[in-house]
Amino acid sequence: MLAGLEVIETMQDAGIEPSRPLAVGVFTDEEGARFAPDMLGSLVYAGGMSVEEAHDVIAIDGARLGDELERIGYLGAMPCPGAAPHAFVELHIEQGPLLEVNGVRIGAVTGVQGISWQEVTIQGQSNHAGTTPMHLRRDPAYAAAALTVFVRELAGRFGGHQVCTVGKVDLHPNLTNVVPSRAVLTLDVRNTDELVLQRAEAEIDAFCSELAERENVAITRRSLARFEPVVFDERVVSMVERLAAARGNTVQRMPSGAGHDAQMIARMCPTAMIFVPSHKGLSHNVAEHTDEADLVAGADVLLDTMRELAEMSFS
Amino acid sequence: MLAGLEVIETMQDAGIEPSRPLAVGVFTDEEGARFAPDMLGSLVYAGGMSVEEAHDVIAIDGARLGDELERIGYLGAMPCPGAAPHAFVELHIEQGPLLEVNGVRIGAVTGVQGISWQEVTIQGQSNHAGTTPMHLRRDPAYAAAALTVFVRELAGRFGGHQVCTVGKVDLHPNLTNVVPSRAVLTLDVRNTDELVLQRAEAEIDAFCSELAERENVAITRRSLARFEPVVFDERVVSMVERLAAARGNTVQRMPSGAGHDAQMIARMCPTAMIFVPSHKGLSHNVAEHTDEADLVAGADVLLDTMRELAEMSFS
Repeated sequence: MLAGLEVIETMQDAGIEPSRPLAVGVFTDEEGARFAPDMLGSLVYAGGMSVEEAHDVIAIDGARLGDELERIGYLGAMPCPGAAPHAFVELHIEQGPLLEVNGVRIGAVTGVQGISWQEVTIQGQSNHAGTTPMHLRRDPAYAAAALTVFVRELAGRFGGHQVCTVGKVDLHPNLTNVVPSRAVLTLDVRNTDELVLQRAEAEIDAFCSELAERENVAITRRSLARFEPVVFDERVVSMVERLAAARGNTVQRMPSGAGHDAQMIARMCPTAMIFVPSHKGLSHNVAEHTDEADLVAGADVLLDTMRELAEMSFS
Repeated sequence: MLAGLEVIETMQDAGIEPSRPLAVGVFTDEEGARFAPDMLGSLVYAGGMSVEEAHDVIAIDGARLGDELERIGYLGAMPCPGAAPHAFVELHIEQGPLLEVNGVRIGAVTGVQGISWQEVTIQGQSNHAGTTPMHLRRDPAYAAAALTVFVRELAGRFGGHQVCTVGKVDLHPNLTNVVPSRAVLTLDVRNTDELVLQRAEAEIDAFCSELAERENVAITRRSLARFEPVVFDERVVSMVERLAAARGNTVQRMPSGAGHDAQMIARMCPTAMIFVPSHKGLSHNVAEHTDEADLVAGADVLLDTMRELAEMSFS
């Protein structure tokens, strides 16, 4: 299932002998682009899904994960859930603009945002754009726009790490001179605090009810994904922060807006992450770039953190 | 070019001999679905486009209008612009819900709304929906929604016959967890009063400038269609109103939200239209329906109006 953990030989070559072994974990299918869900490998390692169930996952192109792992020589034999590490640290590019905007080199990641994805379907009445008076319309395009504006205002009102995105809107029949019959849009709502995320969801619930009533449209919703926020271990987070500064780096605490394997392993042991800047915040894009000096700085903080974790005990 | 004008024999059979001949005009391509622009036949008859130019119009399927008219035996020989009628009246279904909602059988059509169609392209910056803080976003989906809400509010504020519609929105890349890079939407704005229509356009101009500045997006627009409103002849409109009532019909004055051949012929002679109810306001839809009693009532008002017009002189 997993590519397995292998000891980094070069550290031992350098004469460094930590009290606990350091290992690199490489997890299958962090992205989830072909096989859902994402972070599948670390989920299985942490015991959140059985190996058998994972092997039977079918890709968007119809392939079976177990067959594909065997075909490429990656079908591991390690039993899952795997052994709990003493501690876990993941180094990653930020995939967002904050470090660059703030002129900071290292992010000490405090946790991963909770995610609420909903698909919203708004059914109205298709009508002639010229002959239908405004007060007799049941217009899903307007209702979709009003909801988009509402979640934007909600994010501003909540502040902090609250983000809300409408990235996908499909109107039917999608013609210039026709009031649409139907709009389907998605809401991507994230927060680091589960209670605040629930409050955002409740406000969206209430607004949709009020909107459906006011605009005489039918609004139905279904959840596409729902993950609670993950809070990383404060001892590891503050260690990353301290060791980054000790090397002369600028450093800031920040949550991760994207999902990472570390959030799965955080169920098993004290965990945190290290971020380095993403140029213009771009990611999943051919223009994705991190300067070499930032990559080296991140690797050095990872090294220092691993060495200190190897020597310490969590009481 | 035109199917031509032919005398209605049945009236003469009935012994009715008007002072001026009554004729039925049948114009090619009122809808414009295959050959643009719409109302092409009446536009040519009224002298707004030459016959030669019209024959060379190419359809969305690549066919040439002149060739297609010849193929189906409809390539007429009448010179255009044609002779100006003494007066012109068009009977049509309303294609909107007002008559039915108001419980009125006959609409005395006062004119045709002016139309302003714009395509609006909003360019922002595609970004990760989880990692990009709200204040660093350049979000075209939000800007498109804000513009949609703005034109809806404008229509409410202007009141009267002002209508505004966003019927078409395309986001790119249109994914749940990605702030889009681009939104393309259309605005359909109509009013019976050219000055008010211009005021609506000016307000949309100003809002787009303010929105582009505030959201740090680039907004470009292009006109897809622009027709000034047409005002029908008051003498013919009031005649329709009076004769409809004389037959015991309920009647109301109203503008047309859709385009009609009458708006082209109105350049040549005193013109008006008669509307009958559309069930649920539906049109361009297999469910389009007008009750037989309404159709008969409309035809009777047309007959009475034509007979009175045939006897009167416009001074």
